[in-house]
Amino acid sequence: MTLNQRIVLAARPAGEATLDNFRLESVEVPALADGQVLVRNHHLSLDPYMRMRMNDAKSYAAPQAIGEPMIGGTAGEVVESRHDGYAAGDTVVGMGGWQQYTVVNAAVPGAMRKVDASVIPLSAYLGAVGMPGVTAWVGLIHLIAPKAGETIVVDAASGAVGSAVGQLAKSRGCQVVGLAGGADKCAYVVDELGFDACIDYKQHRDFASLAAALDAAAPQGVDGLFENVGGLILNVVLSRMNAFGRIALCGMISGYDGQPMAITDPRLLLTQRLKLQGFIVSEHMSLWPGALKELGGLVASGQLKYRESVAQGIAAAPEAFLGLLKGRNFGKQLVKLI
Amino acid sequence: MTLNQRIVLAARPAGEATLDNFRLESVEVPALADGQVLVRNHHLSLDPYMRMRMNDAKSYAAPQAIGEPMIGGTAGEVVESRHDGYAAGDTVVGMGGWQQYTVVNAAVPGAMRKVDASVIPLSAYLGAVGMPGVTAWVGLIHLIAPKAGETIVVDAASGAVGSAVGQLAKSRGCQVVGLAGGADKCAYVVDELGFDACIDYKQHRDFASLAAALDAAAPQGVDGLFENVGGLILNVVLSRMNAFGRIALCGMISGYDGQPMAITDPRLLLTQRLKLQGFIVSEHMSLWPGALKELGGLVASGQLKYRESVAQGIAAAPEAFLGLLKGRNFGKQLVKLI
Repeated sequence: MTLNQRIVLAARPAGEATLDNFRLESVEVPALADGQVLVRNHHLSLDPYMRMRMNDAKSYAAPQAIGEPMIGGTAGEVVESRHDGYAAGDTVVGMGGWQQYTVVNAAVPGAMRKVDASVIPLSAYLGAVGMPGVTAWVGLIHLIAPKAGETIVVDAASGAVGSAVGQLAKSRGCQVVGLAGGADKCAYVVDELGFDACIDYKQHRDFASLAAALDAAAPQGVDGLFENVGGLILNVVLSRMNAFGRIALCGMISGYDGQPMAITDPRLLLTQRLKLQGFIVSEHMSLWPGALKELGGLVASGQLKYRESVAQGIAAAPEAFLGLLKGRNFGKQLVKLI
Repeated sequence: MTLNQRIVLAARPAGEATLDNFRLESVEVPALADGQVLVRNHHLSLDPYMRMRMNDAKSYAAPQAIGEPMIGGTAGEVVESRHDGYAAGDTVVGMGGWQQYTVVNAAVPGAMRKVDASVIPLSAYLGAVGMPGVTAWVGLIHLIAPKAGETIVVDAASGAVGSAVGQLAKSRGCQVVGLAGGADKCAYVVDELGFDACIDYKQHRDFASLAAALDAAAPQGVDGLFENVGGLILNVVLSRMNAFGRIALCGMISGYDGQPMAITDPRLLLTQRLKLQGFIVSEHMSLWPGALKELGGLVASGQLKYRESVAQGIAAAPEAFLGLLKGRNFGKQLVKLI
């Protein structure tokens, strides 16, 4: 008998999410039915979108059910299979949730995919060569569609998505300005990832200060914004957008705890003829193959760099997740489950 | 010697525009140089965009110069020509400004175009078969791209742009909800223009009240918003947008006097994966011929209806313009100059 430790949603947050919203459980792994595959999860991905799922509110996905394992991307290894397409030892990526083992109905399209972990590390399929990397690709290449010489701004720049956005934009010949929290993250973004500049937003807590920093870093104005944060950052960058600028709205992490963060001067959207588009990467499935091909090639050749923050053990997931929401991670936040 | 009466910008508004911002002048019409054409303007178009030009602020066009004739579209008749392409008696449309006579450098591309006033009334080239009509066409057909059965909302619905938006949307098989100020305008929008419903926004001054009215008029939610007004209306409609909704941002007349009107909950743009695009019609010149062809056909056949508010004489233009900004016009606001 195999025991499976997992984290379930114990209660919905009232405002800020806390450890009390989660509960660690231990349950027995059931016997497999025909067509099922048992996966031992090696890595769990923690991502900001999970915070929105915890609310019982209108959003793009159904809310996370209370008492059920938290939703989440996983990378692992097949340990038992009753499906012809999979065999013990296969390395796979799927939505296994916050748990050590997952029983996957392998016949469901998109439930799981095999990946080659011989060149690219398995964990990278949860980051640069996975959902966050494709998110960066879709928002930047498909929606912003940057041209060489344009100035692109991305916030949460040292994170899994932001770091890929900036490096992809550099590969297209853009000027790239990141925003990140702290001198160490900013140094990493410029020195290791190759951004042209990075603004430590923690040093600029009001509009005038942040706007002055952006003017210094992006003297030609901003042509494309990849927005993960919202709030003050969005309002400041909006005020510096050039005509025909594009905004890919990927996340608004600054407002996930409840308080709406207004766009204070929406006339700029009109006067600068901006295009703003909200998106989620799972609704652009036709773009995934091309995106993964480019991202996989860049990671394999070492041209696309990334960094991971790794928490150890399933019990550490809630605290690591709350830290992610506060920006305490540095790079892609993972939980190592083995 | 011919005298030309004209209205110039006397001073920029401090907040709300007033009559003191304008000055009536009388100047002599100069002799024509080679390539010039003298046009006697029959109709002057008054449009909300002019209010933004009066400010000395970052916008899509240079501010209106102080002491110069106010910018504006005109329809008139050639009275003298020193350009081979034009002859006395030609009916023409151009940007003649707030004045009785305009000297046009006819060789400048786009300075003026000849129109056939035998079937379509000359004034319609300033409305349904002119800039406002093409604005409606570009925002609705090109940006919102409505599908049959979708619900489209447009505000300032009895105006030159809004009335064309709604009728074009009906021609595409959409459910169409207008917003207008007053019972008489709403009755016109539904009974004469054929919208499915019209909300008198003056009866709904807060979010909850307007939202309830919209829920009643658009029980399936909103797929496309053609936005002329901004402020409360934009926030309410945004809260009722369906997934993958499109917003064509054409104007924000509620904020032209200075106070920014925030988008209070921009997370909706993300959670509903909305596309919002600001635009001005003069930057979509490639779409004009197709749009004018459809609009001209619909007006000639009586399928596209419009209404005009006509002020008499150039001296009446400032007051008519201020009334337009307050929504006192009913349909396309014109000034008759002959």
